[in-house]
Amino acid sequence: MRTALCDTLGIEHPIVGFTPSEHVAAAISRAGGLGVLGCVRFNEAGELDAVLDWMDANTGGKPYGVDIVMPAKIPTEGTQVDLTKLIPDEHKTFVERTLRELGVPELPEDTAERAGVLGWLHSVARSHVEVALKHPIKLIANALGSPPVDVIEQAHAHGVPVAALAGKAEHARRHVHNGVDFVVAQGYEAGGHTGEIGSMVLLPEIVDAVDAPVLAAGGIGSGRQMAAALALGASGVWMGSVWLATEEYLQTMPSSAAMQTALVRATSSDTVRTRIYTGKPARLLKTRWTDAWAAPDAPEPLPMPLQNLLVSPAHNRLHEANDPGLVSMPAGQIIGRVDKIRPVAEIVAELVAGYEEALARLEKTR
Amino acid sequence: MRTALCDTLGIEHPIVGFTPSEHVAAAISRAGGLGVLGCVRFNEAGELDAVLDWMDANTGGKPYGVDIVMPAKIPTEGTQVDLTKLIPDEHKTFVERTLRELGVPELPEDTAERAGVLGWLHSVARSHVEVALKHPIKLIANALGSPPVDVIEQAHAHGVPVAALAGKAEHARRHVHNGVDFVVAQGYEAGGHTGEIGSMVLLPEIVDAVDAPVLAAGGIGSGRQMAAALALGASGVWMGSVWLATEEYLQTMPSSAAMQTALVRATSSDTVRTRIYTGKPARLLKTRWTDAWAAPDAPEPLPMPLQNLLVSPAHNRLHEANDPGLVSMPAGQIIGRVDKIRPVAEIVAELVAGYEEALARLEKTR
Repeated sequence: MRTALCDTLGIEHPIVGFTPSEHVAAAISRAGGLGVLGCVRFNEAGELDAVLDWMDANTGGKPYGVDIVMPAKIPTEGTQVDLTKLIPDEHKTFVERTLRELGVPELPEDTAERAGVLGWLHSVARSHVEVALKHPIKLIANALGSPPVDVIEQAHAHGVPVAALAGKAEHARRHVHNGVDFVVAQGYEAGGHTGEIGSMVLLPEIVDAVDAPVLAAGGIGSGRQMAAALALGASGVWMGSVWLATEEYLQTMPSSAAMQTALVRATSSDTVRTRIYTGKPARLLKTRWTDAWAAPDAPEPLPMPLQNLLVSPAHNRLHEANDPGLVSMPAGQIIGRVDKIRPVAEIVAELVAGYEEALARLEKTR
Repeated sequence: MRTALCDTLGIEHPIVGFTPSEHVAAAISRAGGLGVLGCVRFNEAGELDAVLDWMDANTGGKPYGVDIVMPAKIPTEGTQVDLTKLIPDEHKTFVERTLRELGVPELPEDTAERAGVLGWLHSVARSHVEVALKHPIKLIANALGSPPVDVIEQAHAHGVPVAALAGKAEHARRHVHNGVDFVVAQGYEAGGHTGEIGSMVLLPEIVDAVDAPVLAAGGIGSGRQMAAALALGASGVWMGSVWLATEEYLQTMPSSAAMQTALVRATSSDTVRTRIYTGKPARLLKTRWTDAWAAPDAPEPLPMPLQNLLVSPAHNRLHEANDPGLVSMPAGQIIGRVDKIRPVAEIVAELVAGYEEALARLEKTR
């Protein structure tokens, strides 16, 4: 299973794996794919620097990338304290009441902050880029589409290609016009920020719209789905959700057992596309938390980045509650096929074998 | 491009084409696929009988099928007149006001009824089956899932296999348990009644869930998409939207030029999944009519079959308005790729050639 992407990125299989866990990212790279580390959880560039040092020591010299969250248009932003003042009392009250009604305990006083929210700020995302470019990264991906042109130029000056997510052909065209090197076509099925066009339709549309390699995202979790993505014209796949159910993920996030239980239990109908996570439509695991926000008495979610600031402390409490029915986690429809927690290498091996089987099956139709 | 389905149905290509037009259905069959004629437009069994006589004379002896609309559970139903009494005044007023605001003219008094609505009634759908089984049909498909078991048995007694649409693996399992022979896996992208799971995820899920051949529906309009569907495990494809943009469609429905113009103009973002057509979620072309129903002052759609009875006269007026911005038509996201009106045979030839190209491309990755 080789495409031109393998040569461009120096990888064995055209599998790009997005994950917030450095243990998962390193394992994907070691298994012959490209592990892409999500940076949004790092409040400070120094934390990211230390984790990338760890990556450099643990990928066995194999290539890896990073994923940032940066809108193309540079927003005016204040400090976290200033922004918090913009959150209406109605929303704060709803969150408090909902957590109480769901029986979510307060955090113990000695609980360390689980994950940052400042990575959603433009200034912090820029510091992530600065730090990442000091490491031997092979890709910068931006979860919010094309980053600002000067960031793309900065990456290119270091010889690092840039990938950007797109949910419509017109977005993909704009990204490539801005200088983006790879487009990640993010179908409706995908976890996290996603549009309304299903992968089956979106992927060939974007492939035909741009003169750049396209990675298929949304609904990819097996070799058959990889074969479908490549049949539709993709140069490779971008996968996220399936890596949440790995042994390596627990090494980075040891308190994620409830989340993993929720993923194993979930069917493909147990996700919901909602603005409650960040203010923009994103697909999440469906839980009593997302149900509460869908109730008639719930307020409309706030715009980005306010919604994230609003719900982030709630996410920490939900996480500590350790209840599979109360997890707040972006996840795609493919989680319906997750039925156990496995090592990353086993998933990659199965993808490769499944791809070959699918091709052998297709050849019999000729 | 051959699968076991070709032998089972006696067709050259594993392409099943659903259409309300007998001219399109016959052309699909003549081109080597299986044309499946939608029966819901026929108010009376006699009308269907006459059209199937025409099919028998115009398919060149090639196989064809019919599509009915029948829930598995037999509903208690009155006459059309009784049912109409159940429609709230609020809904009638909203429809009248909306048509006025959209500038849709009243129908001239001599306008013939364009299409029936009685086909949505269970008793009428049963009469469709009775009539169809007197013709040499090779498939009965049911758009609402598994038909009642006695209808399946009736078809089997005539040696005719039954297909049923499914938007979830559990529905597919139930259909096959009831005796259904083929499952049509209808992904989120599809036109008409559709669920929330995208084709990329749904298709392999249903293939693994049932011991029956599966047809891929939702997002299929090119040979690449056929190759993707077969990579995902489908035995063939079920296509609907693309046939609306054919020369043959105009032969059956000569006043459909505005609809065809709307399809050619539409992008893959110009559909909407809504309950306003039948009471159950169905994907339609997005127009000023669907926008009006999405406005905050619009009433909630009524349950099936009341919603259909409510909007059917409005559909006739919208149709006569002959305005691409006011069409009421089920259509899938694939219409974004429809850019001209073509003969059916050209579409089939392109599907076959595109499939071969996709396979040749995949083989280079080995």
